[in-house]
Amino acid sequence: MSGLIGIDWGTTHRRACLLDADGALQDERADDQGMLAAAGRHAEAFETLLSGWPRHVPVVMSGMVGAASGWQEVPYLDAGTPLSELGRHLVPLRAAPAGRRVVIVPGLRWRGPGGEVDVMRGEETQLLGALALGAPDGWFVLPGTHSKWVLMDGGVAVRWRTHMTGELFALLGRHGTLAAFEGDVAVPDAFADGLRAAAQGALTHTLFGCRARVVAGDMPPAHARSYLSGVLIGTEWLDTPTRPQQVHLIASAALAGPYETAARHLGVATVVHPPREVHLAALRYLLEAMTW
Amino acid sequence: MSGLIGIDWGTTHRRACLLDADGALQDERADDQGMLAAAGRHAEAFETLLSGWPRHVPVVMSGMVGAASGWQEVPYLDAGTPLSELGRHLVPLRAAPAGRRVVIVPGLRWRGPGGEVDVMRGEETQLLGALALGAPDGWFVLPGTHSKWVLMDGGVAVRWRTHMTGELFALLGRHGTLAAFEGDVAVPDAFADGLRAAAQGALTHTLFGCRARVVAGDMPPAHARSYLSGVLIGTEWLDTPTRPQQVHLIASAALAGPYETAARHLGVATVVHPPREVHLAALRYLLEAMTW
Repeated sequence: MSGLIGIDWGTTHRRACLLDADGALQDERADDQGMLAAAGRHAEAFETLLSGWPRHVPVVMSGMVGAASGWQEVPYLDAGTPLSELGRHLVPLRAAPAGRRVVIVPGLRWRGPGGEVDVMRGEETQLLGALALGAPDGWFVLPGTHSKWVLMDGGVAVRWRTHMTGELFALLGRHGTLAAFEGDVAVPDAFADGLRAAAQGALTHTLFGCRARVVAGDMPPAHARSYLSGVLIGTEWLDTPTRPQQVHLIASAALAGPYETAARHLGVATVVHPPREVHLAALRYLLEAMTW
Repeated sequence: MSGLIGIDWGTTHRRACLLDADGALQDERADDQGMLAAAGRHAEAFETLLSGWPRHVPVVMSGMVGAASGWQEVPYLDAGTPLSELGRHLVPLRAAPAGRRVVIVPGLRWRGPGGEVDVMRGEETQLLGALALGAPDGWFVLPGTHSKWVLMDGGVAVRWRTHMTGELFALLGRHGTLAAFEGDVAVPDAFADGLRAAAQGALTHTLFGCRARVVAGDMPPAHARSYLSGVLIGTEWLDTPTRPQQVHLIASAALAGPYETAARHLGVATVVHPPREVHLAALRYLLEAMTW
């Protein structure tokens, strides 16, 4: 085995790591050429990302790259698949550039009673990394555009729920009537007010309250963004089916902060795993487990 | 009194009516030159709307025209103000075009215990019209971008809650990840499925479920828009603080349909008042009550 290149290729961002045969990190890169930006020119965007790295090293991609709207649609695995077996289900990229060996990690699909369904792409690889690092069973929270609450049991993602928290925050703050009130600076008191407002339920009403407080003169416009963040993150925490004593957060520093604050408000302990670390751990696991 | 011109000037649309001295409708117009489209050129957009109508007839404007983001900000009245007294609180437009007498109907602001606040602009005039038409006390629902549930008691809007239903529908369907799934045709079964999904609560999760059902192959993409509509309207109905036996809907035909369907699912009776009719009734009330 000649090492491994891993790409976590999401909707808006991507990150690539080059590992040697021992799993030692040789180089890494990240940019904003996610699936949206790379649409229609995936091969070119792929070569740009890996430019100068050895062509004979196999590449493992995870994330939205395998979605219907990605580079090549890869069917979901059922939720019962042990994450330790992901390496057996890697799907070759049909349009792999000449001289490259490229595979995609399949996402997972969960179906519950009553027709409920949920999906993930990319998080399964991050969760594999967390397991490889020794994280125990329990709830894993992966905040983001589509924030996920995943119950891990015996190395299997037995059920999960996705929340549109990040997407709603972006839509309301960028295109909606709340856009006019945006402030760029985080205001901890306004975030806490938003968390408390979320506790009253009725999200569509609470969201309007963000606007009403400003136009009624009860909140400075510069507080609206933090308040909105508190309302949405607070709602996500309150809408979970159970209240665990501890959750594992797989989150960048920017997202870990507000999620830890929300957890403190609710008396929930948190363990934070940086996405880069769990991705690296997953790649090292696959490097050992795979036979190419 | 030489008749009256009324303009209901909202964020995205406006409607103007010309009444003679007896309150008979002489002409009416509507277009999409709402506050967003008319920003920075209100006087020009005003003259275009009224072009050819007599200049000496006084003009009463209601709606977002009086917002901070409108033509002239008009302070809110307190929620305790009887709607029958709105005519005493009309605010002259400072920049009225030469030869015109123009006033703006103030919006209302409600403050509840615990710092809750809500506002309306334009709906107070529609509610006045409904009262003038003999509508009794009770709950009035005004669907739209910012849908309002108003409790009327003795001619006063004693409390209300605004829901961002229409704005969320537009944002998710136009800019969000659900945009890719849009179908233009209403699918009643998908709408009903959305209503049922809403009953499970956890809106940010249920919204993602709309995407998950499509990408998992459990729902045709052309059903997503109706499903999303059912989720959002169902959530609005379920998030109200009380479940009235009957509500008065002040809604265009396009919105009355889905709101009546939601009401039937919950066993709530509805009385529909077209916005045009209640606006005309409000203008006729003001025509009699005002001294210019």
